Amino acid sequence: MEEILEKVLKTIEKYKLIQKNEKVLLAVSGGIDSMTMLSIFHKIKDIIQVEIGVATFDHGIRSESKDEIKIVEEYSKKLQVPFFFGVGNALKVHLKTKRNLEDVAREQRLKFLREVKEANSFNKIALAHNKNDFVETFFMHLLKGSGLKGITSMLAIEEDLIRPLVGVTREEIENYAKNEGIPYIIDLSNYNLSYERNRLRYQILPLIKSSYPNFMDHVLNFSDIALNDENLLDKITAIELEGIKRQNNEYSINLFKPLSLSIKRRIIKELLGENANYERVNMIIEFIESNKKKFSIGKDIYVAKTGNSFYIEHGTPFTIERSYILKIPGITTIPEAEVKIISEILESKKEFDLNDKTSAVFDLNFLKFPISVRFRKEGDIIEIENGKKKLQDLFVDLKVRRDIRHKVPIVVDNDDKILWVCGVRRSTIAKIGKDTRKVLFLKIVPLTQNL
Amino acid sequence: MEEILEKVLKTIEKYKLIQKNEKVLLAVSGGIDSMTMLSIFHKIKDIIQVEIGVATFDHGIRSESKDEIKIVEEYSKKLQVPFFFGVGNALKVHLKTKRNLEDVAREQRLKFLREVKEANSFNKIALAHNKNDFVETFFMHLLKGSGLKGITSMLAIEEDLIRPLVGVTREEIENYAKNEGIPYIIDLSNYNLSYERNRLRYQILPLIKSSYPNFMDHVLNFSDIALNDENLLDKITAIELEGIKRQNNEYSINLFKPLSLSIKRRIIKELLGENANYERVNMIIEFIESNKKKFSIGKDIYVAKTGNSFYIEHGTPFTIERSYILKIPGITTIPEAEVKIISEILESKKEFDLNDKTSAVFDLNFLKFPISVRFRKEGDIIEIENGKKKLQDLFVDLKVRRDIRHKVPIVVDNDDKILWVCGVRRSTIAKIGKDTRKVLFLKIVPLTQNL
Repeated sequence: MEEILEKVLKTIEKYKLIQKNEKVLLAVSGGIDSMTMLSIFHKIKDIIQVEIGVATFDHGIRSESKDEIKIVEEYSKKLQVPFFFGVGNALKVHLKTKRNLEDVAREQRLKFLREVKEANSFNKIALAHNKNDFVETFFMHLLKGSGLKGITSMLAIEEDLIRPLVGVTREEIENYAKNEGIPYIIDLSNYNLSYERNRLRYQILPLIKSSYPNFMDHVLNFSDIALNDENLLDKITAIELEGIKRQNNEYSINLFKPLSLSIKRRIIKELLGENANYERVNMIIEFIESNKKKFSIGKDIYVAKTGNSFYIEHGTPFTIERSYILKIPGITTIPEAEVKIISEILESKKEFDLNDKTSAVFDLNFLKFPISVRFRKEGDIIEIENGKKKLQDLFVDLKVRRDIRHKVPIVVDNDDKILWVCGVRRSTIAKIGKDTRKVLFLKIVPLTQNL
Repeated sequence: MEEILEKVLKTIEKYKLIQKNEKVLLAVSGGIDSMTMLSIFHKIKDIIQVEIGVATFDHGIRSESKDEIKIVEEYSKKLQVPFFFGVGNALKVHLKTKRNLEDVAREQRLKFLREVKEANSFNKIALAHNKNDFVETFFMHLLKGSGLKGITSMLAIEEDLIRPLVGVTREEIENYAKNEGIPYIIDLSNYNLSYERNRLRYQILPLIKSSYPNFMDHVLNFSDIALNDENLLDKITAIELEGIKRQNNEYSINLFKPLSLSIKRRIIKELLGENANYERVNMIIEFIESNKKKFSIGKDIYVAKTGNSFYIEHGTPFTIERSYILKIPGITTIPEAEVKIISEILESKKEFDLNDKTSAVFDLNFLKFPISVRFRKEGDIIEIENGKKKLQDLFVDLKVRRDIRHKVPIVVDNDDKILWVCGVRRSTIAKIGKDTRKVLFLKIVPLTQNL
């Protein structure tokens, strides 16, 4: 058996890419890598007992793609392998949306492949990335600082995508294609081969190879180990994250502190999502373990503590500085709270539901205008039946979610006295009574609600 | 404050290199890196509240080293920092033992540093490796396939060794030394700068830097994350290894199988010690999870199963093919078992301690000569009082350690019948009785025991 076949079989076994009796859809572009993959799978399909099919996609970018489809179709027919093809409009979408052409093309291609897969009961989609591609991607990620996840990404089985040629070098593919007389089209445009990848491919990696002839294998092995470490650490992180979780996306500081730095970093990375980077993660851990109460990174990430908990928020600062003059009568939009406040002036004869937390009524005569809407401030106090109360204590007593407290609209008079903590509690100022003649009626409704 | 000082302070804080009120011994060679480290520590010692001292070592390799010691001593005096120095004989030892010169030098230097440290109550020894050194080492290990441990090794605090300059580039050190007018000696010989490191330093890494200007920081961050992951995984591995351990260095297969691949690999790596590499670790895991019973790698590593356990041995094959003709009377050396067998021919009048497992007596008349000594074979049977017994069962019943069974010397007669399983059990062949006139007396003694 040719060595290249053995290598592919070994890769399939090692990473458990395919099970017996599965159906594998080969993504074939007509280039040397994917045509070689087709030839190899045609030879090994009976050994590993799988069925194969070929899918090719015309991205609608280049005029040559018709020839490519033809060559794939003919070779598939020759090998008696079912052939599927689709046509996209990546260039059109790119020109219209200004989105990155390569991204659009990849997205459309993947969508097509998955549709063919679903419609024809394939189990896996095989991509023809080779060992050189892998090593290039590895170094691109390492040198740009994307962390282990990025570095090992090409080895991972992502849902239904597998890469059975990842253990085979470009050179081995070229030799095999030549010996076997495999037809293929040379993609002259190579539109997805970036300048960055070219520098790696033609300058940096060959120079490394001249000193370290086996470095590609070492990088591959390293990634395989790291990928499995990564999988385990992800599982541990998920368990620990669940363990420190309290209500409302708050996390226990006491339970966080004793975790190992490795898990702390992964937890914070998880909570930050795509905003995570090495420095931010470290800064947040340092903050959590400090005596500080609030912390923000850039304009978008806010971390704070409440009692023994910390929480992370995106896109909402702790203090919203905006305020709005209330239109009376009229509708005032409060985008921060995602609500509108409707105000009307009504006769006092009307009956009001004083228990409806989404509305409040005031004796117009006792109000100091203009009335405005702002958000909580340090030291806010509200006058209620039993006297004055700190707004902070009110929020705690009434169990207002801590993470939304800063965006609760607060209606205040011209002295900045709190009239209504919208949706939470009315003050005792300007209560309506027997002598009330004109009533200010306020109601909050979600921004999305049609009036 | 100069940026370089801030960077060193940050590194000290980040990796928790030094605690308040500790004493730090700076290893200073007279080169630019370590002289700069001395200058920096002299400036920050009051900020971080540490005491410092300087130690320099003449390896006895080059004639210039006297000048180097002098320059370090003078600069230390100028800064009023305690100065220690020592002299070694690395070249002599190298010439005599043929051991690698650099290894000998490093060993002697470290011994000296630790002696100074102990004698003068220092807490840490600071080495002057910089960020470029780190990145070079990182790539050397990555490209040669030494795994995460090697890759992160320079970041780790190894016992008392710290590297406070690891966040500072060679360029920053050069600029600082120039601005501050720091005296230093250019080491023209650079005897420890290998050809390999030179390729990285002057060719590969500059080329990478031209495409990825910040790659050194990314590599450093990557290593910091990996080092902490590594620490956690090591802890988990130690716990799991303890958990699957049974008696006599046997490990439970049932408890091993459900572990994650990451931990399986680390456990096997741990058990293999310095013989571990990626392929061997994977082969052994595959063996353990297979139905096979025995497995060997090269000439030195043997893995086998017994019941629900597996065990790994170094340097001893399962089957020792050698056999020895017993010298009668005389001494026969059995190196595999690390014993000698003494044989004598005695009168039957003598009294023998039949319970002494290290000796056995036979009626000379009933023995078929020549008598020889060999090791266990598949299907071995011994004749005992109750009949015949499988040697394997005898070992099990008498709780002979499984890992030494294959090297127990077995005395057999000319028909290859077992006379004596040395130290374990005598057969019923040629028992001495009333009519015995001549007795063959055998005794095993350790090879090291003088007779």
